Amino acid sequence: MTKELREEFFRRWKKISSLESALALFAWDQETYMPKGAVSQRAEIIAHLNSVLYTLVTDPYFVELLDSIEEEGKEFARHARVARIVVDRYFKVPAKVRTSLAYSTTLAVEAWKLARKEGDFSIFEKELDNLLKLKKEEASCLKQDDTSLYEALLNLFEPGITEKVIDSVFERLIPKTYSLLDKYETNFASDKYSVFEYSPDKQWEAAAFFASAVGLRLETDSRLDLSTHPMCIAVTPCDVRITFRYRKNDFRSSVFGVLHEAGHALYELGIDESLFYTPLGKIISLGLHESQSRLWENFVGRRKEFWSWGFYKLKELFPFLEGGIEEWVKYVNQIKRSLIRVEADIVSYNLHVFVRYLLEKELINENLTVKELPTRWNELYKEIVGVVPGNVSEGVLQDIHWAAGLFGYFPTYTLGSLSAAQFYNQARKEITDLEETFQEGKFSVLLDWLRKKVHSRGAATLQEVLLDVTDKGLGVECFINEIERLISH
Amino acid sequence: MTKELREEFFRRWKKISSLESALALFAWDQETYMPKGAVSQRAEIIAHLNSVLYTLVTDPYFVELLDSIEEEGKEFARHARVARIVVDRYFKVPAKVRTSLAYSTTLAVEAWKLARKEGDFSIFEKELDNLLKLKKEEASCLKQDDTSLYEALLNLFEPGITEKVIDSVFERLIPKTYSLLDKYETNFASDKYSVFEYSPDKQWEAAAFFASAVGLRLETDSRLDLSTHPMCIAVTPCDVRITFRYRKNDFRSSVFGVLHEAGHALYELGIDESLFYTPLGKIISLGLHESQSRLWENFVGRRKEFWSWGFYKLKELFPFLEGGIEEWVKYVNQIKRSLIRVEADIVSYNLHVFVRYLLEKELINENLTVKELPTRWNELYKEIVGVVPGNVSEGVLQDIHWAAGLFGYFPTYTLGSLSAAQFYNQARKEITDLEETFQEGKFSVLLDWLRKKVHSRGAATLQEVLLDVTDKGLGVECFINEIERLISH
Repeated sequence: MTKELREEFFRRWKKISSLESALALFAWDQETYMPKGAVSQRAEIIAHLNSVLYTLVTDPYFVELLDSIEEEGKEFARHARVARIVVDRYFKVPAKVRTSLAYSTTLAVEAWKLARKEGDFSIFEKELDNLLKLKKEEASCLKQDDTSLYEALLNLFEPGITEKVIDSVFERLIPKTYSLLDKYETNFASDKYSVFEYSPDKQWEAAAFFASAVGLRLETDSRLDLSTHPMCIAVTPCDVRITFRYRKNDFRSSVFGVLHEAGHALYELGIDESLFYTPLGKIISLGLHESQSRLWENFVGRRKEFWSWGFYKLKELFPFLEGGIEEWVKYVNQIKRSLIRVEADIVSYNLHVFVRYLLEKELINENLTVKELPTRWNELYKEIVGVVPGNVSEGVLQDIHWAAGLFGYFPTYTLGSLSAAQFYNQARKEITDLEETFQEGKFSVLLDWLRKKVHSRGAATLQEVLLDVTDKGLGVECFINEIERLISH
Repeated sequence: MTKELREEFFRRWKKISSLESALALFAWDQETYMPKGAVSQRAEIIAHLNSVLYTLVTDPYFVELLDSIEEEGKEFARHARVARIVVDRYFKVPAKVRTSLAYSTTLAVEAWKLARKEGDFSIFEKELDNLLKLKKEEASCLKQDDTSLYEALLNLFEPGITEKVIDSVFERLIPKTYSLLDKYETNFASDKYSVFEYSPDKQWEAAAFFASAVGLRLETDSRLDLSTHPMCIAVTPCDVRITFRYRKNDFRSSVFGVLHEAGHALYELGIDESLFYTPLGKIISLGLHESQSRLWENFVGRRKEFWSWGFYKLKELFPFLEGGIEEWVKYVNQIKRSLIRVEADIVSYNLHVFVRYLLEKELINENLTVKELPTRWNELYKEIVGVVPGNVSEGVLQDIHWAAGLFGYFPTYTLGSLSAAQFYNQARKEITDLEETFQEGKFSVLLDWLRKKVHSRGAATLQEVLLDVTDKGLGVECFINEIERLISH
């Protein structure tokens, strides 16, 4: 393969990435500043851009170039491997299904927002039903003979993962979760800090402060905005934006939301510059992605050492905060089953994910209907989490994922939580006095370590990076140990 | 031509429009919320999207479809005519020049912002020089044998307009401008209202209030944001966004900026729904565009009748505002030569445009260099406007246009001002008691008239619409009369 042909391949990949950037900006805009009446036309635009994208990716000459790169191997082998995964997905799912999905998710997200606001599932039902049909169709195009429909969707977020692995993870994790709950669940303290009103302005200031402290360069290559559901969107590798939301009486919602999204953003921003706009420049493992967000949110943000520095800053913003760090740390680490996944404590969090995993399998592999979904949601919440939502906004409508077509995404939160513990554990072994740096509000040692070990690689699977960095595969034990270490002192 | 082929043509046009929407959103984002460090990659993205756009427009099959539509004539003749103008431009300018221009303008806009902030032309000089070279190259690709380079650029904004017409407009307009200045220029009043501080929050509130009052549905199909230079960007026909800026001590800057941009937005939002994403769905005459913005800014916004309603609202927001309406109206219509075009009074405004027109001709047709530009700017300001900028930010760097590659755009402001007067004059003839509706803060009668007569048509040239609506061609006299009528009472 000549140098010219190789360059042509990478040039075309850049064009494809540019369209993906446009779609990312549209997605960010829809969650932040889009005028409400724009949505139906926006849906058409998104569908058309997806169809242009489809044409670019499935262009026969482009595929020929990929074939040549593949045959060549060598330093381009990793590029070729990732590119092939992406291109294959395009060929398997017809343009019509893709563009219908793009169109429908744009509308579904708006319907979800309204339904959530109004507390009325029926507003969302038709859109979700339509979307579910399309996702099943997509899954049946993607799936291999010996796998389930759901596994095909799982693989969109974690290449190579199987339902069997996820089942086995939960099988080991859920009993241990209940043991931890028996041991640590408590009712204490929460009232003490929840009588205050944390003003939106000050929460915004705090959010920006903590995001910057852990390494996000707001206004330089990142932004912080409000949205219905916290998120991180990479418009380009130098423009990664996060959003958050706040609760008037519970400061934890904004701060841990922001640390979570900041973790995502730091990963995206840490990709090696030489990989920008190449196949390796886009993250393909959402499990790995979640490992980074959960690491910052939990194993940094919930640490006593973190607050032994951060609580003082917080007192500047909210002078009414009384008491010592001990008490505050107990409050932010309060283990108590509750309704909202993104605000769940670090132990019961995986119960929320488990419920969604079961529901998704029932929706995609079995015959659970969208109509039955709210009731089934409540049943499983009662059975598994032990709490029952009082309304659909706190129940089945709490997450944006299904509206955005992200079926099969939720399990990556648990994969991420478990591996976050493993990465963190490894970092502590390799970095002297890691946690003491937190006490000074310094996180660059950890960030540098993560950049070197994880972020800079760009596209890679969770399993390969985990093995490479920690010399172990995915496990439950390290997570349980790290959790106990975190909450027991 | 079969129905299927026709539908394929319009489907492809929609795809093209979708990419243009993406570029519009990127442009809006760059002026409002883009992280600063994102710009160089953003420039690459924009260049790649432009190159995809080029491929779609110059696709041989698409051109064949256009040929067939053209031959068919009938109800599709107008579509074909506009589509041909657009497609021809693509064929004349090679992809390389287009993508270089897209890349360079993205960088130039950022350099301009910084240069303007720092008051240092040298920060912008290299980018502008590069851009000028590319614009000359573009012009030489576009130009016909018997026309100048500059005329080719003029035609990008006003199809069919000639340098000769613009020359002749200014030849008649400039002497009359000086006569009006002799008669009406004054030094009174400005100090009275400029001692106050108009808080940003309240100015924002006032801006949103007046924009809504004239008919913009903020948050529904429009938005209001801050930017360095006021602008209007149509992301889609149902998502048209405006920006403004404010001065602490001069309320006029924000309110007239907003009314101007609202005028643009109302035009875009008034395009008939059946034309969305067709060749006729995108406005091709910037003269016509400016006629709508100048109409709302000047012939509505500067009227005594407007303020006999609006001043009371203003007093609610700024309780320190004293005096009667008469005095306030004199203040907002104060005729006094000054430095900044967008804040110029309605009479001397065209002197600002004339200076830019002369400079552009010197830059494009003659050999004025970018290095010489600041000095030449000041010379012409002294000679024509009669004022000399104290620094480059108030001088050659005041407008975003050249940074955005918009050479040949400025004359459309004068075309727009003149024809705004003609449209307004016609509206007053056809609508009983038009100006009395303003006294009640009601503008829907005028807006409906404009929608019916102008907006709904979509793509059309200034000259054809003017003739159709007013039964006259472009002239200077009506403008002079309307101005005198406006400022003399």
